[in-house]
Amino acid sequence: MKDSEVRYVSSEFGNRLKISVFGRSHAKAIGVSIDGLPAGERIDMSELMRFMRRRSPGGSPLSASRDEKDIPVFLSGIKDSVLTGERFCAIIENTDANPSDYSGFEDTPRPSHADYTAWVKWRGEADMRGGGQFSGRLTAPMCVAGAIAKQILARKNIFVGAHLASVGTVDDDPFDLKPGAQLFDLIADKDFPVINDAQGEKMKKEILRAKENLDSVGGVVECAVIGLPAGLGEPMFGGMESKLSFAVFGIPAVKGVEFGSGFAGSRLTGSVNNDSFYIDENGEISTLTNNCGGILGGITDGMPLTLRAAVKPTPSIEKKQRTVSLSERISREIEIKGRHDPCIAHRAVPAVEAVVAAVILDTLLS
Amino acid sequence: MKDSEVRYVSSEFGNRLKISVFGRSHAKAIGVSIDGLPAGERIDMSELMRFMRRRSPGGSPLSASRDEKDIPVFLSGIKDSVLTGERFCAIIENTDANPSDYSGFEDTPRPSHADYTAWVKWRGEADMRGGGQFSGRLTAPMCVAGAIAKQILARKNIFVGAHLASVGTVDDDPFDLKPGAQLFDLIADKDFPVINDAQGEKMKKEILRAKENLDSVGGVVECAVIGLPAGLGEPMFGGMESKLSFAVFGIPAVKGVEFGSGFAGSRLTGSVNNDSFYIDENGEISTLTNNCGGILGGITDGMPLTLRAAVKPTPSIEKKQRTVSLSERISREIEIKGRHDPCIAHRAVPAVEAVVAAVILDTLLS
Amino acid sequence: MKDSEVRYVSSEFGNRLKISVFGRSHAKAIGVSIDGLPAGERIDMSELMRFMRRRSPGGSPLSASRDEKDIPVFLSGIKDSVLTGERFCAIIENTDANPSDYSGFEDTPRPSHADYTAWVKWRGEADMRGGGQFSGRLTAPMCVAGAIAKQILARKNIFVGAHLASVGTVDDDPFDLKPGAQLFDLIADKDFPVINDAQGEKMKKEILRAKENLDSVGGVVECAVIGLPAGLGEPMFGGMESKLSFAVFGIPAVKGVEFGSGFAGSRLTGSVNNDSFYIDENGEISTLTNNCGGILGGITDGMPLTLRAAVKPTPSIEKKQRTVSLSERISREIEIKGRHDPCIAHRAVPAVEAVVAAVILDTLLS
Amino acid sequence: MKDSEVRYVSSEFGNRLKISVFGRSHAKAIGVSIDGLPAGERIDMSELMRFMRRRSPGGSPLSASRDEKDIPVFLSGIKDSVLTGERFCAIIENTDANPSDYSGFEDTPRPSHADYTAWVKWRGEADMRGGGQFSGRLTAPMCVAGAIAKQILARKNIFVGAHLASVGTVDDDPFDLKPGAQLFDLIADKDFPVINDAQGEKMKKEILRAKENLDSVGGVVECAVIGLPAGLGEPMFGGMESKLSFAVFGIPAVKGVEFGSGFAGSRLTGSVNNDSFYIDENGEISTLTNNCGGILGGITDGMPLTLRAAVKPTPSIEKKQRTVSLSERISREIEIKGRHDPCIAHRAVPAVEAVVAAVILDTLLS
Repeated sequence: MKDSEVRYVSSEFGNRLKISVFGRSHAKAIGVSIDGLPAGERIDMSELMRFMRRRSPGGSPLSASRDEKDIPVFLSGIKDSVLTGERFCAIIENTDANPSDYSGFEDTPRPSHADYTAWVKWRGEADMRGGGQFSGRLTAPMCVAGAIAKQILARKNIFVGAHLASVGTVDDDPFDLKPGAQLFDLIADKDFPVINDAQGEKMKKEILRAKENLDSVGGVVECAVIGLPAGLGEPMFGGMESKLSFAVFGIPAVKGVEFGSGFAGSRLTGSVNNDSFYIDENGEISTLTNNCGGILGGITDGMPLTLRAAVKPTPSIEKKQRTVSLSERISREIEIKGRHDPCIAHRAVPAVEAVVAAVILDTLLS
Repeated sequence: MKDSEVRYVSSEFGNRLKISVFGRSHAKAIGVSIDGLPAGERIDMSELMRFMRRRSPGGSPLSASRDEKDIPVFLSGIKDSVLTGERFCAIIENTDANPSDYSGFEDTPRPSHADYTAWVKWRGEADMRGGGQFSGRLTAPMCVAGAIAKQILARKNIFVGAHLASVGTVDDDPFDLKPGAQLFDLIADKDFPVINDAQGEKMKKEILRAKENLDSVGGVVECAVIGLPAGLGEPMFGGMESKLSFAVFGIPAVKGVEFGSGFAGSRLTGSVNNDSFYIDENGEISTLTNNCGGILGGITDGMPLTLRAAVKPTPSIEKKQRTVSLSERISREIEIKGRHDPCIAHRAVPAVEAVVAAVILDTLLS
Repeated sequence: MKDSEVRYVSSEFGNRLKISVFGRSHAKAIGVSIDGLPAGERIDMSELMRFMRRRSPGGSPLSASRDEKDIPVFLSGIKDSVLTGERFCAIIENTDANPSDYSGFEDTPRPSHADYTAWVKWRGEADMRGGGQFSGRLTAPMCVAGAIAKQILARKNIFVGAHLASVGTVDDDPFDLKPGAQLFDLIADKDFPVINDAQGEKMKKEILRAKENLDSVGGVVECAVIGLPAGLGEPMFGGMESKLSFAVFGIPAVKGVEFGSGFAGSRLTGSVNNDSFYIDENGEISTLTNNCGGILGGITDGMPLTLRAAVKPTPSIEKKQRTVSLSERISREIEIKGRHDPCIAHRAVPAVEAVVAAVILDTLLS
Repeated sequence: MKDSEVRYVSSEFGNRLKISVFGRSHAKAIGVSIDGLPAGERIDMSELMRFMRRRSPGGSPLSASRDEKDIPVFLSGIKDSVLTGERFCAIIENTDANPSDYSGFEDTPRPSHADYTAWVKWRGEADMRGGGQFSGRLTAPMCVAGAIAKQILARKNIFVGAHLASVGTVDDDPFDLKPGAQLFDLIADKDFPVINDAQGEKMKKEILRAKENLDSVGGVVECAVIGLPAGLGEPMFGGMESKLSFAVFGIPAVKGVEFGSGFAGSRLTGSVNNDSFYIDENGEISTLTNNCGGILGGITDGMPLTLRAAVKPTPSIEKKQRTVSLSERISREIEIKGRHDPCIAHRAVPAVEAVVAAVILDTLLS
């Protein structure tokens, strides 16, 4: 493999609402800065904290035991819970970081982690303890942004919801053709974010089995946005699929994104996959199916926008794995101890909601 | 469905190499403008035209009968076949447009086309003849940009290749762990861009069967980039998956993008999906598998970068379909006559190569 | 002097309305592409051509004798004189280019021209005939963009006007505290764009005297925007001064930009320079003076926005000048023959109006 | 005056090095975030603090008496004084804020301050205590960015220096044709940043006289960059003048920017203003004069880059001024008590250096 000599480029998404997450797992703090939030919107802080807790670990055997309170400190852009129209900046202090968790891997990169690519890119300047800036922990500031975006969207009767569509080979029920906001709330209140709890129990077993095997397992998150006006987005490289996939792939461990029938649709015929128009019971133009995921030509058609994100199995597993010593260039074996999630797909659910909400609000503000 | 009141936002991709496609199916011309091409690079024009012909229809019963020569006229940025470092602009005149092809659909939007969303968005200002600015024809100027990017990359020993991974339910062989540039050339020279010609024949039959049934069929394009240095891309929202998916979803009809094992990987355990490091026969750090698609933490690891793009079945089918009259708000039936591709997935192959090459060059220039 | 190894970066301005000018003096064509123009706006083409003629030379002894018709050809974004909401692209063919005009200067850079910097930057790849991409001729496509922006602004009762505030040491009258749209029209209809025609005659003499002396002369353009709402622009690096100066300095030969009392104001005391608020005859909040140029804290205050742009003397003069041979690295003398403007400040008047109108529209669309 | 309904847009500058300042005068903290700083650069913290102190008030009768320590806390992007290549974020806590300073002006906007425009824009949501986000205090985080940029540039033998070119009607000596880095250091070490100390004494008297008169006075900052390679910058809207003026106008109170001979040059003839090329004593191509300020066609020519920024008189004066009551829409008089600088031009000197250094580094990284 050759090495590159690239320099750093911005890690930011959004056009009008520019969101950037900063910090690393073992720095003093992680945070988020947002340009473009509309002045005058009141933020319900307990609602925000409720959303934050959905991604936070602790307590459950399904997640890592690291105890993070994830309490944001607001530095600018908000006064007395009201957005001021300035650049918004919030930080979350890293209180429970345990640098020793990572010690021992500086020279033997963990397979399918970013250890190796970070080492190539920054040649030792990167602080990779706890996953560094690649850590799933950075979804916490993403969720601050998402929590704010969701509240502003809700006032426009636009709701973003998601559930865990699969863990390993166990599938949850998919969203209906027209899911409601109540369902989103119901899922949000559950400990395990699924529609069908019986399937949820099977998923949990799949996760616990992986944990017992010193292994991990992947999953899929399905997300839907309801109440969207038709006409959002632009043709070609301004399309909703481009914007949304850009943001969703920014969530660590996401390796696939599809809209509507997606990959399954590519195996169908047009007569089956096409969504026929009809006049619905309210006299509105609607479609009988939603294989396009609410997006035609990059532009919303007013049906629920639906996407699915594939989350890879957690790369940190306790099982013995083959790797190399970077300094000696010889083969090595490693076992990764410490606090690791046997599955991160369920914790990715609010992260997907968060970035989708941010992209939708960005587009609405455009 | 509610309507939005959004205004136009740029349709462009790239950070250092900014590419924008303009025009519509029945305008005087379509074209591409590119900022950021490096001065001094010589462009082999016959090579460029060879690439253009890969997406061009004509002759084959597998494609629409529209006869487009797709000869670019270079307005700026190139002199005596050498890039000058100015903004590059090339146009392709629309010579064979047949406006009457579209007449009759102004009021009855074709299912799963952008007719309805364009009507909502621009309220009759959009010129939707021939698909307007949503037309697959706009992949022609994308290919001009891609042809140039591919030539510049080849001088750095970076090669981008793609093949038709499936049509309907028929699959081609996947790329090997480390495909070579020769294979890419071999596929590029074929009339039908597959690895396994026997499977290719089955795919063609699938397409012709769809055509006979007045129907259409979808497919999947697999793309690989070889010779990439490790270390390209940034964490989080600067990752290669974000950049590439943004561009690939800009190709009309793409509804899913996955990297490496993608959605299939989400059903596996970590011990199976993780890519073990080893020292290869050249003493280089390599991985035994490539389920990550050559990207870890958003950053290239030096293995081939692989992605798959799901292309939906062509929405234009001759079969009778259910739609509505926009003016009368009542149900209608339509049959779409005219020149239509029963499958566009094989024509999307060079388009995927083009945008992937552009994103890779953009990242290298960053 | 050291050389840099920089690569090309975009030459574009605007946030929502992104405007980019391309081409060079002796290419097949020059042009402009614009993202973000609002769909549905009707463009009065004869009005547009009237604006184009204000910058066009020909006829007058005050300008170069090059005869350019400057007729834009519209490639996309407009249909039947109505903006469609797509990317707009217009080109102007170069019909009267005379490459031999430049021959002889490849090795001996003209003082205060971009010949030397272009040679350093592109090492011979740049086509510098006629000034290449630095040519004042590129203000023609700028004016296409500006003409469109001006028409859209006028429908919102926002008017942009400019006059030649000085030529050499001869000054025109300044704009009143609250100039009217009628004055702008009056100036636009004049052959020589001044308020006080007697002063205009003196300016013309100054230009003709410079011409007789085989010399040239500079000038200042004053521009005002009336009808602007208060509240446009953002603090700090989002301020109107930042946006406007960015665009105005993009006009070739502009070397200074000031707002309101500008440099003169820096020599005053606060009690003299401050603009007192009062309630005007219409019951509106207004200011007694306008030393801030209608901008406070980067944000419009509702008074006329005023700026002045310093235009350097045309560097092309027939007088003998000292330069060097780039290849031999020895001193040389040159005399620049050919068609040159003894002053370009009066032709810069519509160019300033154009870019100011574009920035204002961009900000209004934001 | 009409009001606008605009929404917030980003306040950021730079292309590769994106710098954004956030916070407001009386928030918990102000800060700066920077994308694009090169990994591996070591930052000399005592040097950084020395630069910070140049803009910091305290002690001198020439400045406000507010005692700010301005000690940055580094949240991300730097570890053990070495840049890590992540997004950089530093904050400065507001320890000495005195909200009561502003009380009383909510309804009676101070002339030539941003009180009125902020009120129009945010309708009471803005926190304008101490000048809010328009406060000169926000030049402190700018200086953090500038201090880092200056250190990186110095390693490339590029030096940025500035002095106070005038206060009121008293002028300092201008920079020589080729100023040296030693002079920049000398000025930086002075309490009052001028070249000619005798003139500096007169300037101080001008400031103290204004203070005695309950008035204020403006000034001009001259800045030069030496050691720059030729070839930096792009034609048209990518020119150095555009980039630099954009950033310099982001400094509060700057109302004019000119390069080289600027406005004075516009009154000259070409034969006087043109800069003749010659071969200098080192065999290098150089110019006899530098009226272009080291920039031709937007591109550096290798001579010192020079610019001048006009700083308006501090709008906060104790003298009685005329204003209006926003609620009652009647005339009022105000006297502004509290801690105010009778002149801010000398404190703008490091701020100009800071943003100029940032733009230069940004362009070098491009």
